[in-house]
Formats: sequence, structure tokens, C-alpha cells
Amino acid sequence: MTKINSKQVAKFLRPYRVTQGRGFRLRDVDPGDTRGLRSEQKAEAKELLARGVEWLAEEQEKLYAQDRWSVLLVFQAMDAAGKDSTIKHVMSGVNPQGVHVTSFKAPSAEEVDHDFLWRCARALPERGRIGIFNRSYYEEVLVVRVHQEFLARQKLPPELVTEDIWQERFEAIRNFEQYLARNGCLILKFFLHVSRDEQKKRFLERLDRPEKNWKFSSADVQERRHWKDYMRAYEDMIRNTAGAHAPWYVIPADNKWFTRLAVAAAIVAGMERLDLAFPKVDAARRKDFAAARRLLVGD
Amino acid sequence: MTKINSKQVAKFLRPYRVTQGRGFRLRDVDPGDTRGLRSEQKAEAKELLARGVEWLAEEQEKLYAQDRWSVLLVFQAMDAAGKDSTIKHVMSGVNPQGVHVTSFKAPSAEEVDHDFLWRCARALPERGRIGIFNRSYYEEVLVVRVHQEFLARQKLPPELVTEDIWQERFEAIRNFEQYLARNGCLILKFFLHVSRDEQKKRFLERLDRPEKNWKFSSADVQERRHWKDYMRAYEDMIRNTAGAHAPWYVIPADNKWFTRLAVAAAIVAGMERLDLAFPKVDAARRKDFAAARRLLVGD
Repeated sequence: MTKINSKQVAKFLRPYRVTQGRGFRLRDVDPGDTRGLRSEQKAEAKELLARGVEWLAEEQEKLYAQDRWSVLLVFQAMDAAGKDSTIKHVMSGVNPQGVHVTSFKAPSAEEVDHDFLWRCARALPERGRIGIFNRSYYEEVLVVRVHQEFLARQKLPPELVTEDIWQERFEAIRNFEQYLARNGCLILKFFLHVSRDEQKKRFLERLDRPEKNWKFSSADVQERRHWKDYMRAYEDMIRNTAGAHAPWYVIPADNKWFTRLAVAAAIVAGMERLDLAFPKVDAARRKDFAAARRLLVGD
Repeated sequence: MTKINSKQVAKFLRPYRVTQGRGFRLRDVDPGDTRGLRSEQKAEAKELLARGVEWLAEEQEKLYAQDRWSVLLVFQAMDAAGKDSTIKHVMSGVNPQGVHVTSFKAPSAEEVDHDFLWRCARALPERGRIGIFNRSYYEEVLVVRVHQEFLARQKLPPELVTEDIWQERFEAIRNFEQYLARNGCLILKFFLHVSRDEQKKRFLERLDRPEKNWKFSSADVQERRHWKDYMRAYEDMIRNTAGAHAPWYVIPADNKWFTRLAVAAAIVAGMERLDLAFPKVDAARRKDFAAARRLLVGD
């Protein structure tokens, strides 16, 4: 497998990687950006993606064999931005034994009866595995912030619900992620940044194409009315929760082929920094091996 | 995608499929069997497997969209029979969002404090998903039967541990699987049947090849001493738990390329019988779609 040119990948990702949130502005990222790649170069992009996926499959084996690090990939986005299809295209090809995807929907009664990180904490990847959160605890500062009536349903003691609640949640999330990072979890967070127009186009497609009908929900169309509120919430979320140990990648999402390529590149770059390798056999284990070999050969 | 010839697949699988356990004999299945396919035809088999995997990826999408059935694949075998590699080769390529693999190892203290199905019941696939058990509750009538000292550690009230315990466990498992089947779970169980000689060869490979070293465990070599006890336990398990709603596939496993092909064929055949399809849009929903379209177009 061709060696990945880490410098090139890092340079490619620079405009999308946010490790210091202060001053971040969503409007500085164009959802239609393809980094100069023209759509005629789609085939090339697809080829690059295939190489990335192959590389990822190999790294995943080492991650699993080594059994020290875990990897958490968080996906957040407006509806139809391509979360599902990105997960499908970037992660199909990786051994499913090493990957676990959890989709977080509206919380159940049991989940609401717990603190807001609870259901996600239960789904965290084991060492040696890649965990993917399709939506996550970040919904707690997104949909819950845009629709504050959801907050009321969370049954918090009223005196704890103050105007500081979003800042408190950001702090809780920052601390949680720092704790995870210090315990050997590589965290990469993706905001797939789609435009309102492209979303409309994709909703219409869901109505038009029978095999996409099942994905359509009228509620999603209603939600478009809150577009600006959502954008403000996303921006504030990124400003408050981007960190070197848990970067946000704000990925242009109006072109699916580009989204997939950029997401794959970010995962490749992140895992490469872990310097994964098959575990070395030490002297004690080598002795153990020799004894086992004798036993087997005579068997 | 070429239509699968169901009759041909069913005929291919017939010698390995056990739906009525009575009289089943393990020695009637040759671990080295390749159904007349010669190893020079490996490339052809690989091509067939690729088609099967592609087909499986398509069925999985319908399973997910339809969200009614779930699929449970249980893998049992001696060490190095190829459970991990079969899962990898048959299931990589399927969207990981729809697949969840659980590997059951020695039970934890918390797990031992529960009934023997508990930890597996918690890991059952949701509707719309494929769940894979790499080992399962069947270990309770295999390793626990061969090493009865493990049974003592299960903290059962002593008066409940009688000579009937294995028959009682078989009955519990049969009832559990019948219940699952009646609730919309397709159950397919695989015993990968490897020979003692081939296992030896594979263990030696794990010692010889650095990238396989991490898989080697001396305990596995020790376990070979109990080979006959294991074979008796497997045979009795299959005799007592094969059913039309939860068939056992006893798959020759001395040739990995053949194992993968046969497992893929069994999954394809099983899922095809579910007659999966994207959900149809009914009149009410069509009306809903029209309203949404008007809203979107004017937006």
C-alpha cells in the first residue's frame, strides 16, 4: 500500500480542522468548497477514497491487535447533510468486528432519567475498536438549544436550569473529552456543513426516488424554519468545544464525493499519529512461544 | 446485480444445513470437503464470494429501511477455525451502521452474577440490523461442559446443578431461539468444523508470522488435549438445538476460501427467504409527501 504523505494530508485538512474555537466563524467555510477539485475529477477523488479506505482497514487491524487505543468518531450535521452515506462509504470495507456505529435518536424515557452524557458513555468504543456516533451528546447543545421545550422534558431540578446551562454543558463536554483522551481515546469530530439549498435538493430527491422514500420525514422539512438558530448553535458549539485533543472538522458537504474524501483524510491523519503497530513479542513471550512450538510439533 | 439462483444455493448448502438434530453425526462432515471445488478454482470462489458480499450489502439496506426483521448470526468453532477471518471477509463491505459484532470472552464477575443468557440477550441486534455473535451462549454447553470447574464458578444454587443441567440448558436455548424467531429475528448458526491437524498448522503459522503473533495463546495449545471432549460436546449441541427456525450450518473449515463461500451462501439464502423490500408508500404518506413538496418548492 502506498505510503500516505502525511504533510500533504495535513495541508489538505488545514482549512477544515478547528483546534482552537475562539473566533471561529461558520461563514468562513463554504459548503460548496471542493478545494479546487472540479467535479470532473470525481473519479480521481473516488480512487483516492478507495486508497484511504484500504489504508484505514489496515490501521484498524493494528488498532485491534494492539488493544491500547480506541477511536471515537462523532458526526453532527443538519438532516440530509450526508452523515449516513459518509459513514457507509468511508467505513464499509473495514472489518465490522472492529467498528461499532451508534445512532442516537430522541432519548427514551430511561435515557432522559439520567444525566445527558449517560447514554453516550455507555456506547463508547472499547480499546482496539473504532466507535462511531451518528449524532451524539452534542445534540444537547443543538436541538435542545434550538427547541428549549426539550430541555423542560429533561426533568432537571428547576434551580439547576439557569442561563448558564449551555456554558455548563460545553464545560462538561470539554472535561469529558479531555478525560477520554487521557484514557487512550482518539476523538475526531465532524460537522458536515451543508447549505440550505442543497438540503432542499436532497429532500426533493427523497420524495422522488422510491428507494429513498423511507428516509423522508415531514418533520425534517419543518425543521428548516430554524436554520439560522441551528447555524448559531453549531458555531457556538465549535467555538466552545474544539481542542487539540478533540478537534472539530468542519467539512464542506454540498458535494458528497468531496465530503467523503475529506472525512477519510481526517481519520487517516488522526490514526497515523497514533503510530499503531502489531504488538512486539518480548523475551518472556518468545520463551513461551518456543515451548508451545515444541508441544505442537510433537503433537 | 445478477439474480441469485436460490435452488442452486439451497442444493449447495444441503449437506451442511441441519434443521433436525436427531441422529446427526459430526464425523459425516469432512473438514477438508470443498464440494468438488479444487483449490485451483480458488479465484472463481473468490469471485463468487465477492458477488455474495455485494448482494448481502444490498439486502442489508432493505433490512435497515424496512426495520421489521433482525438477523442473528452465531459463530462457534474450535480456536483457529477461522471465525474472525470469516466474519471479516464475509461482512467487510456491508455498511457497518447495520452490523454489530459482539465477541464473547470469559464472562466478567457481573456477567456470572446473572443467568447464562443475560449477556447475550443484551447484545441482540435491533430490528433492521445484523448482529453477529463471535462465540455465544453456546459456550455454556461447550467450554463449560468440557471444563466443569467453570460451572462451579457460576454460583448457581447447588441444588439446581443436577445431571440434567445440559439437557436443561439445551431446552432453555431452544425456547429462547424460538421466542426470538417469533419476534422477527432470523437466526443462523455456524459451526466451523476444522480438523485437529489443520488447527496445528494454523497455530504454527501464528508462531511463525510476526503479524499473527498477537493472536497466539499458549492456553489454546493446551486446549487441544480436550479435542475429543469438545467434538462430543459440539455434536450433542447440534443434535439438541438444530431447528427449522434456527438451523445449524456445519461448515467444513480446513480451507478458508471454501468456509467463507459457504457461510456467505447460507446468509444469502437465509435473508432471501425474508423477501426484504424497501417500504411501500401508502396513500396517507403520499398525501404527506405532496404537502412537503409544496412547502419545499416554495422555500
